[in-house]
Amino acid sequence: MTTFSVTILGSNSAMPVYDRHPSAQVLNINEQLYLIDCGEGTQIQLQKYNIRPSKINHIFISHLHGDHYLGLVPLLDTFALLGRTAPIHLYGPPLLIKVIDLHRTINGWTIDDAPYKIHFHPLDPLNSELILDSKKLIVKSIPMNHRVPCTGFLFEEKPKERKMLAEKITTFNIPYTAIPNIKKGADYTTTEGKVIPNEELTVPPPPTRSYAYCSDTAYNESILPIIKGVDLLYHEATYLEDRAELAAPRGHSTAKEAALIAQKAGVKKLLLGHFSSRYHELHPFVEEAKTVFEHSKLATEGHVFEVE
Amino acid sequence: MTTFSVTILGSNSAMPVYDRHPSAQVLNINEQLYLIDCGEGTQIQLQKYNIRPSKINHIFISHLHGDHYLGLVPLLDTFALLGRTAPIHLYGPPLLIKVIDLHRTINGWTIDDAPYKIHFHPLDPLNSELILDSKKLIVKSIPMNHRVPCTGFLFEEKPKERKMLAEKITTFNIPYTAIPNIKKGADYTTTEGKVIPNEELTVPPPPTRSYAYCSDTAYNESILPIIKGVDLLYHEATYLEDRAELAAPRGHSTAKEAALIAQKAGVKKLLLGHFSSRYHELHPFVEEAKTVFEHSKLATEGHVFEVE
Repeated sequence: MTTFSVTILGSNSAMPVYDRHPSAQVLNINEQLYLIDCGEGTQIQLQKYNIRPSKINHIFISHLHGDHYLGLVPLLDTFALLGRTAPIHLYGPPLLIKVIDLHRTINGWTIDDAPYKIHFHPLDPLNSELILDSKKLIVKSIPMNHRVPCTGFLFEEKPKERKMLAEKITTFNIPYTAIPNIKKGADYTTTEGKVIPNEELTVPPPPTRSYAYCSDTAYNESILPIIKGVDLLYHEATYLEDRAELAAPRGHSTAKEAALIAQKAGVKKLLLGHFSSRYHELHPFVEEAKTVFEHSKLATEGHVFEVE
Repeated sequence: MTTFSVTILGSNSAMPVYDRHPSAQVLNINEQLYLIDCGEGTQIQLQKYNIRPSKINHIFISHLHGDHYLGLVPLLDTFALLGRTAPIHLYGPPLLIKVIDLHRTINGWTIDDAPYKIHFHPLDPLNSELILDSKKLIVKSIPMNHRVPCTGFLFEEKPKERKMLAEKITTFNIPYTAIPNIKKGADYTTTEGKVIPNEELTVPPPPTRSYAYCSDTAYNESILPIIKGVDLLYHEATYLEDRAELAAPRGHSTAKEAALIAQKAGVKKLLLGHFSSRYHELHPFVEEAKTVFEHSKLATEGHVFEVE
């Protein structure tokens, strides 16, 4: 089984406290790294957890609050210092390009003589769009309900091919040229004209895996159809119910609300993060979430969550 | 004696490594804090060393390489989150205002409705200027010889007043209204017309103290007249002599060159910093510097250097 895991680099909201860092996480899909949000100090966290920046080719920024993007320019500088030439794909709010342009101006780079290219993909905060479509993966944006334009991200493996049973190749004398179609689900017709059903020749592929990142957002059921049934959901839980009155006006959720979303979307597991600096202890977050949704965990620094 | 000390928050150049952080330090003059450079993670370093951000009213940025200024916007955001209303005086290269303006735009602030005011003082990189003149302190810029416009900073206490000897007030029946002038050095003429020389009425004030920050710069003797005789000199030492050929073309100095500047300027003590990531061990820096200038020290994270 190939890798499909998320490593948490930052779990806190607003400002760093109690050795908790602002939002950032790395999704590892088959050793391709996807960086999701990039708060201040993300490059230091990458170092701490031995994650090689050179393996990151895609960076997703949910919104332009400082705790989600102010580690980006330092990381881009470090890419250059490390001799990077491979392009970066950057997804984020349209205004993010102004930050990149200013960074380029300050560094004295033109678009053409920069050490590496940045392909910027501006996001529509109001509609879920297909924003990345590669051989094995698709990424869709998820409109969040926050104080500023904000999108979450859904990462889904594409269905893999069915697995050919080696012994059937011999049994039915199947030429190699026929195998790609059989892996895609086709039946096989022998030279004698006998049709062998695909189910007899192959086994189903491993299930596709999926991860949804939803931060920052108030409780918002309109995301349910998009994240329905995902294997792993990260949903912000800035507050506990004791401060529920703060959550919605600030575009945030409580741990209980995150759990309600997980339950209603029928996801397999829930990760809670983006904790307010008002809370020193975090175990009440997972306790509150579990009253609604059993498979809830804290997404704190350095933890790696595998999707199996 | 009032406080006059510098706390090192970051000692590394270019990128953070080996638990060394990018450039930042705090000068404490009588509990007024002056932040000098502000690399990524400066606010985390402030927390680590229990330095209250609310006491910082002046921030000095030497130049616009990322390791000297990319912690500034996160710190400005945190000021707002902490409820700051007191203005900030910001000194730096003219282009820095573009960063501040973009930050304001992204945060949806106008100049008038921002939580606190930022008074920006653009620096001339070619001439030494008086950039701050307060009751007890002056700050001058020091032109550096770097690859981009860059200034160092000289902090000098203003001469204090002479100290009145209390018993002389009685002896000569001196009215209180005459005391301010006597403290400034005036003689006193008694009602009988006798002139009492100032030296008989007062003792000299404590000596003024001074600190110079010189980073980043190639070896440059033209700064000598400006930093002559300072109590404490911070001079960058990116390389050792083993890589001397890299230093000048990149606008940097070796530890030996830093020591030569200290020696020729007749300073009292030298601090070395801004170490290249190529070096894991730092003791060779101080050893190299001491071959030229005995009172050399490493300016590493968390160290506090008092000027007495």
